[in-house]
Amino acid sequence: MFELTILGTSAAVPYKDRYLAGQVLNVQSELYLIDCGEGTQFRIKDLGIRKSKINHIFISHLHGDHCFGLFGVLTSMAMSGRTDPLSIYSPSGLKDMIETVFQYTYYQSPFTINFNEINTQIVSQILENQYLTVTAFPLYHRIPTIGFLIKEKPFPLNIIPEKIEQYQIPYSAIKAIKNGGDYHNTEGGIIPNSELTLPPYKPRSYAYCSDTAYNETLVPILEGVDMLYHEATFMHDMADHATETGHSTTIQAATIAQVAGVGQLIIGHYSSRYENLNILLDEAKSVFENTVLGIDGNVYSLDLQRII
Amino acid sequence: MFELTILGTSAAVPYKDRYLAGQVLNVQSELYLIDCGEGTQFRIKDLGIRKSKINHIFISHLHGDHCFGLFGVLTSMAMSGRTDPLSIYSPSGLKDMIETVFQYTYYQSPFTINFNEINTQIVSQILENQYLTVTAFPLYHRIPTIGFLIKEKPFPLNIIPEKIEQYQIPYSAIKAIKNGGDYHNTEGGIIPNSELTLPPYKPRSYAYCSDTAYNETLVPILEGVDMLYHEATFMHDMADHATETGHSTTIQAATIAQVAGVGQLIIGHYSSRYENLNILLDEAKSVFENTVLGIDGNVYSLDLQRII
Repeated sequence: MFELTILGTSAAVPYKDRYLAGQVLNVQSELYLIDCGEGTQFRIKDLGIRKSKINHIFISHLHGDHCFGLFGVLTSMAMSGRTDPLSIYSPSGLKDMIETVFQYTYYQSPFTINFNEINTQIVSQILENQYLTVTAFPLYHRIPTIGFLIKEKPFPLNIIPEKIEQYQIPYSAIKAIKNGGDYHNTEGGIIPNSELTLPPYKPRSYAYCSDTAYNETLVPILEGVDMLYHEATFMHDMADHATETGHSTTIQAATIAQVAGVGQLIIGHYSSRYENLNILLDEAKSVFENTVLGIDGNVYSLDLQRII
Repeated sequence: MFELTILGTSAAVPYKDRYLAGQVLNVQSELYLIDCGEGTQFRIKDLGIRKSKINHIFISHLHGDHCFGLFGVLTSMAMSGRTDPLSIYSPSGLKDMIETVFQYTYYQSPFTINFNEINTQIVSQILENQYLTVTAFPLYHRIPTIGFLIKEKPFPLNIIPEKIEQYQIPYSAIKAIKNGGDYHNTEGGIIPNSELTLPPYKPRSYAYCSDTAYNETLVPILEGVDMLYHEATFMHDMADHATETGHSTTIQAATIAQVAGVGQLIIGHYSSRYENLNILLDEAKSVFENTVLGIDGNVYSLDLQRII
């Protein structure tokens, strides 16, 4: 499973049914929370997301609309009896801010919070586990801001069941074949791996870019990602205002997607001046056809596909 | 107009359609925000309350479920172009907490915030304006906590129009009569005020008690208030747990209402262990009949009545 649930798509302030920044990425049933605007704990609850499955929280930057929900998420986790440690990744300052708020509100976390302050100037891998790696990279906003690239690790190969029988492959040899090895049989013969296994599954990838001005240095980082969320706060007639405020337009988001050759572009982080989002979608699609609107509560998933 | 809108009735964490602590009292079209749990800015927006009309915010105590919404309310006010000063009344610590959060989130308020740190040990008048007074008084929770008593000032008397004609009362004499004076006519006669005016309107009052353990010292403060919101976090079978955690049961809230002779009791701040609130209502009514459930989004108003 590789599934993105968007909790909120509104920039700065909530607007009608658009909530503040927050997303949950589900990779192999582990949940990763990306940004955490006010109300994130309500959104998680309303959308039936199990907060006990969240062990990593990524915060792009310390503007309130991307982090004011953390206090509530963390205290609610405690109220639900959490004892597992939790890791938070963010630009510097978040740890001090949260610890100060907890002190003034007489709150002591019953679980360990590991704060990871990320260097916002460089591209760096910040997490690796069994299933994936997470890389942080600089974005171009008014304050130190990072984007996140989540990439699945290569999958073990699937052996074709009939081949096990055909070549009498013993159990002890299976692991090596799943990892790409050929099979050396007892007679000294070599059966090439490609004959024994199905074409491998393609590792899936997702990148999150909010908030950021248009910047082509993002292209090599985003090259070929399957799903890109790129903010498109404004229509392109507001390109000057976007640049001034460290945001992007529809056309700019779509241009990044186009040049980086991503699979799909999801736009979001809409200014509250836009009630009808279809005009933003149309503008983005004029540059990059495979664009969809980020919509609060919608789920965007990537299927497993074999490399052919 | 004297109208209370309840934004949230849930204790500690949001539960189904019950949000966190927050209320808006509308007195003569000035809005007073009482407590401000996470999501208050959403509730205000969804309920069509004009946040520009809020000039005073009262925070009972610094547990997160009563104050984590402040960051969002204050920054959203700024995004809406607010320049008018705002006053906040709370136990000590709130100013430092908010200023720290604003510093880490690169936020500078474009309007002045006057923080008033209230002594939580004594009964003290903390606000007086044209229409009302607000008095803070100690509550009995695990941390320094205050309740709020809002009382309308006496209304000017209404002169009976026919009497102005009958006694040929000049315009210059009206103000004195409205303030309770008799009318001295040009022939040296005295027309008593009671003959010239209608019985006066009764000033209305509202008191907010959340969070607090049962404590009879509240009774003289709450004596005769028209509308009392008193937390009833638990059913009475959990009286011991209520005492330990600094909360009240239904029976305890109703007993305070009964002994203080209030007009109406609104209960709230319900534990998330209760889905069906009617059992709490029934228990409270067994002690104080004129009890109603505090329900998220409901409006509770007091009509003007003449003293007879």
